[in-house]
Amino acid sequence: MKATIVTIGDEILIGQIVDTNSSYIAKALDKIGIATHEMLSISDDKEHILNTFQKLQNEVEVVIITGGLGPTKDDITKKTFCDYFEDTLIEDEAVLLHVKEIIEGFYKRPITQINREQALVPTKAKVLFNKAGTAPGMWMEKENTVFISLPGVPFEMKYLIDNEVIPNLVQKFERPYIVHQTIMTYGRGESLIAEQIEAWEDNLPEFIKLAYLPSPGKVRLRLTARGNDKEILQNEIKKQVQLLDLLIHEIIVGYNEDEPIEVVLGKILTEKKLTLATAESCTGGKIAALMTAIPGASNYFKGSVVSYATQTKIDVLGVSKEVIDKYGVVSAEVAKEMALGVQKLTKSDYAIATTGNAGPLKGDADAELGAVFIAIASPNDVFVEEFNFGQPREKVIDRAVSKALELIYKEFLKK
Amino acid sequence: MKATIVTIGDEILIGQIVDTNSSYIAKALDKIGIATHEMLSISDDKEHILNTFQKLQNEVEVVIITGGLGPTKDDITKKTFCDYFEDTLIEDEAVLLHVKEIIEGFYKRPITQINREQALVPTKAKVLFNKAGTAPGMWMEKENTVFISLPGVPFEMKYLIDNEVIPNLVQKFERPYIVHQTIMTYGRGESLIAEQIEAWEDNLPEFIKLAYLPSPGKVRLRLTARGNDKEILQNEIKKQVQLLDLLIHEIIVGYNEDEPIEVVLGKILTEKKLTLATAESCTGGKIAALMTAIPGASNYFKGSVVSYATQTKIDVLGVSKEVIDKYGVVSAEVAKEMALGVQKLTKSDYAIATTGNAGPLKGDADAELGAVFIAIASPNDVFVEEFNFGQPREKVIDRAVSKALELIYKEFLKK
Repeated sequence: MKATIVTIGDEILIGQIVDTNSSYIAKALDKIGIATHEMLSISDDKEHILNTFQKLQNEVEVVIITGGLGPTKDDITKKTFCDYFEDTLIEDEAVLLHVKEIIEGFYKRPITQINREQALVPTKAKVLFNKAGTAPGMWMEKENTVFISLPGVPFEMKYLIDNEVIPNLVQKFERPYIVHQTIMTYGRGESLIAEQIEAWEDNLPEFIKLAYLPSPGKVRLRLTARGNDKEILQNEIKKQVQLLDLLIHEIIVGYNEDEPIEVVLGKILTEKKLTLATAESCTGGKIAALMTAIPGASNYFKGSVVSYATQTKIDVLGVSKEVIDKYGVVSAEVAKEMALGVQKLTKSDYAIATTGNAGPLKGDADAELGAVFIAIASPNDVFVEEFNFGQPREKVIDRAVSKALELIYKEFLKK
Repeated sequence: MKATIVTIGDEILIGQIVDTNSSYIAKALDKIGIATHEMLSISDDKEHILNTFQKLQNEVEVVIITGGLGPTKDDITKKTFCDYFEDTLIEDEAVLLHVKEIIEGFYKRPITQINREQALVPTKAKVLFNKAGTAPGMWMEKENTVFISLPGVPFEMKYLIDNEVIPNLVQKFERPYIVHQTIMTYGRGESLIAEQIEAWEDNLPEFIKLAYLPSPGKVRLRLTARGNDKEILQNEIKKQVQLLDLLIHEIIVGYNEDEPIEVVLGKILTEKKLTLATAESCTGGKIAALMTAIPGASNYFKGSVVSYATQTKIDVLGVSKEVIDKYGVVSAEVAKEMALGVQKLTKSDYAIATTGNAGPLKGDADAELGAVFIAIASPNDVFVEEFNFGQPREKVIDRAVSKALELIYKEFLKK
């Protein structure tokens, strides 16, 4: 059971936008046991699209296409569908009514001819009704392959995948089992982990595959088992994870791929009825943005002071000017005072503070490029650690964010 | 002159990571006039990789492959290269020395066997020396196609693209001219813009293509001209942009695709020697994180108070409890007090404040789901606007961030 995901759009091929749709679709397919064979980005060109359809016909059972369904002239997927399936467009009444409701109701203006054309669909298509936007999805079949076309706007695509595409695929196809288990590790490099778990990895059964997914400051390990007996797969994965835990227990922070460390932290804070605040200099609010991206964060996240300017550290967080003059604004002492300052200001149980020099220029600080101090304040204590995350700027910021979350997570493990 | 970009890795095909490498590479190729024909993501499987190489052989002049070069066992690109080019691996002395320097110098430990294997390269390969990491890039040629293999870690890939791949491609190939011009618009929908500029679009010369790139709250318009005479292309693009400006002047915020609105704002603030601060509730620090991602932000960005909890709005920003009780925490009055509060606290010239209900639950607020108030404080004034960005949560946050930046940008235009 294989699928290929096709994104259509010159804006992807010239690098102007990053394709995030394919990964969302692949994850959804994977959960129902459909393996993504390939992802493909192609141009807004009729011949190119037709050639691609021809190539994929009968190579895979499912082709999911995103993009090229918008209201404007550069969108040609629908016409190409008609060519490929030797079909013509008709106006779908339900879709037209829906387009009218959105445009007239939400935007408070009459629909235009361009809006009206969104309700056109090929006569042979099953319409996938799009409650999240004006462009409908379409499901068409030819020989052994289903072609599904979705709008490229991410939240519209997501709505259709979750509410139309997946339920329809589940109904149509019988699928094998795929079991994944991700192990999230923090603070150790890929090659060092590989050395430590080499013997274990060599002894994995044939039907289990291991992958290393490194990103700044953390490595995710992913086990994938494929087969027909779900129970055997699950038991073997469970056994292997236990063996792995014996080898690298100290760096494992969690097991759920949909649970990045900020979600794990949110759960711990909720469960223990504790609150958190951040005082951020070099991370510029990114820790707060991560923590608050999670629904329900208001239960435990009090807030943040992004004290980017030195004077803001003094005026808002109450960091002492003498300490700054003596140790420099990028220093262990300032990080500590920032953490204690925001903890007091927001009446939080815990606080994270970052101060560093992300570069590319030295800025206010004497500290070397890439130097970052991270302080963690708990109800009765405060500690600080020093790092150098090198360059470039974005890497320094990302690693500082990762490391800060790791440090506070480990602090909770101790309790 | 065409290229295809191939990313190798099961982690992409199961949707665990988003491929951002391809877009970086495509942008770099586009700048030197090489068009990306397709992007392709395939599995860590030798047969799959070999089949892909075979298919691309002579279909395009350049194939750039990322991923599958790391130190761990799931990385097989190098061995597959040997198969495809009928070659064997040898240890490259310069690369080995470099690996030793990084591991022994930076990580302070002796190199392992796995580290050592990173210095192995096919005998026929031109080594692309990777100063940003341990895995070298490789350049190999067969008939009319160059195959270039790069590590998948983004900052290593970027280093090699900028410093090795692009300079080598420029030297090897003659290329046609491609001129792009992006027009950034804020605050009007795609289909409405399309109606307004329809006559202009219909009259564009054959060699110029227009694309619409919508994202929450903004639409980028991209003109692409291809041809052999650079000057003609540039003049025609310039002329068309002037005509377009006559039609939609009021929604255009800039013309540089590498200049998102936060960069434009940074330039205005620097030029006018003004400072900015933010008080963020529903946007959770995301405006601050965007502003501070830009090098040099410390010249104009004073900081932010992420007043996520209601009490933090009172304690840190000085919002009056009476106002909150009377109007609710998601209200025009609270947004205004937040903006004035952070402006005073950080002694900034301008301030942005956001308060809203991003959902999915109602939280502290009585306001409806998706409701957001954005206030802008300037030296002598403060104003507030109300929006409803619907659902889901991530869309509300993203649109609030976009809209806030648009509002302050427009405020500067008035002066």
